[in-house]
Amino acid sequence: MKRSAFFISDGTGITAEALGQSLLAQFENISFDKLTRPYIDSVEKAHAMVQQINAAAIVDGTRPIIFDTVVNQDIREILAKSDGFMIDIFSSFLAPLEQELTSHSSYSVGKSHSINSNSNYMERIDAVNFALDNDDGARTHYYDKADLILVGVSRCGKTPTCLYMALQYGIRAANYPLTEDDMEHLQLPAALKTYKHKLFGLTIDPDRLTAIRNERKPNSRYASFAQCEFEVREVENLFRRENIPHINSTHFSVEEISAKILVEKGVERRLK
Amino acid sequence: MKRSAFFISDGTGITAEALGQSLLAQFENISFDKLTRPYIDSVEKAHAMVQQINAAAIVDGTRPIIFDTVVNQDIREILAKSDGFMIDIFSSFLAPLEQELTSHSSYSVGKSHSINSNSNYMERIDAVNFALDNDDGARTHYYDKADLILVGVSRCGKTPTCLYMALQYGIRAANYPLTEDDMEHLQLPAALKTYKHKLFGLTIDPDRLTAIRNERKPNSRYASFAQCEFEVREVENLFRRENIPHINSTHFSVEEISAKILVEKGVERRLK
Repeated sequence: MKRSAFFISDGTGITAEALGQSLLAQFENISFDKLTRPYIDSVEKAHAMVQQINAAAIVDGTRPIIFDTVVNQDIREILAKSDGFMIDIFSSFLAPLEQELTSHSSYSVGKSHSINSNSNYMERIDAVNFALDNDDGARTHYYDKADLILVGVSRCGKTPTCLYMALQYGIRAANYPLTEDDMEHLQLPAALKTYKHKLFGLTIDPDRLTAIRNERKPNSRYASFAQCEFEVREVENLFRRENIPHINSTHFSVEEISAKILVEKGVERRLK
Repeated sequence: MKRSAFFISDGTGITAEALGQSLLAQFENISFDKLTRPYIDSVEKAHAMVQQINAAAIVDGTRPIIFDTVVNQDIREILAKSDGFMIDIFSSFLAPLEQELTSHSSYSVGKSHSINSNSNYMERIDAVNFALDNDDGARTHYYDKADLILVGVSRCGKTPTCLYMALQYGIRAANYPLTEDDMEHLQLPAALKTYKHKLFGLTIDPDRLTAIRNERKPNSRYASFAQCEFEVREVENLFRRENIPHINSTHFSVEEISAKILVEKGVERRLK
């Protein structure tokens, strides 16, 4: 049975989506058709939304689940009249918080994912630029400015992780690929030695690495299982020998890898 | 008055953080000291967490606010004994959802931000690679594969937006800078004409652009207010003349810009 789920907001929808995804993931035997609908910020859009929800209810033969973070009371009331089952996030928690904080909610829309301050914006853009400029060992003379330096074989997930940490947390993360040359020397590249305390290693299962590299360079020696297995083994040996903290990225998402790195290295996010 | 707020999870903490940030943003007159604590997944870590919370309570002279998405009952009970005010997200919503779905929650940890499937993972990595390979007009012969092509002056926010859409939604977004040459011709670059339906324009206030460019190339003609104003004016004229949908990025976060673009262009996310 398929069931529709709507994540509805008068802002970006990011909070409704995150919470909805988390809760629905707890029901593994049900298949959900998930739709995020941001910027439902007028009575007209709310009525159009209700029509979509009701249409889904007819197709599914059952009530769609609605997660909403709509702040505007009028819009929320319109949505509540739809044929959906509504999880009203803000209503549930704002009243107890108002009491605890002895303060009134401003009931203002789209606060959480807006630009809080210019310095926050600059911090973030600087972090993205840092990740791009210091990607793939392109530059090594700015490592004094890095919060972290990820190391690992080519295509083990260093770049997406650095970019995610930059965008999400404002962390300045460089990355350096351990290539075949370095592995024959079996030691840490000179550029990294001074910054050993900033290093974090990513490793990956050789068969997954083979699959990823084959997407990029099909049937190359670079993508062969033998080569991937050799590189991974040598790099893992290096991590152990040099005492570099590391995780295997194979079964983790970019979010999980990033969160684990920050915990392990004790690095605090720059965006608050 | 400063008040501590903890976002606690036995997973990445992303959901607790998103919801906590959203709710706290509604209390603009209170200054919060926000701390995200992911992977609190053992009784020992829970006890250490309680000590941190209680220490903050003493320093602040008031109860910290706790947003938690801890699935494990034992850990949640330990946290509940701390001197914090607990907003227990999963407890509040799982019971009503179980009833509506006539299904039991699996109470499994860290489901929502994990790797759901290899295809999802590949989709995402491919999108990041696409954004990097097609950044800043570097390549124009893969625009047939693009979901979107962002256009605008240099440093108006195209790259972070493309990367965010790739990581968060799996969207393949290229970007093309409208440079001075293009502006003198006052027409759409040839490479973009065929793909006009994929174009979305970003514009920016000239004074903000000046500030951003000065970070990159201080005191250059490129960063001068006169130059920034000229470029922005010409590009905005182009957007209007060619009927290219566009927004001014100055007062919006990368999240907001991305969400608005998807709504406006009717592009559905590839990650579900």
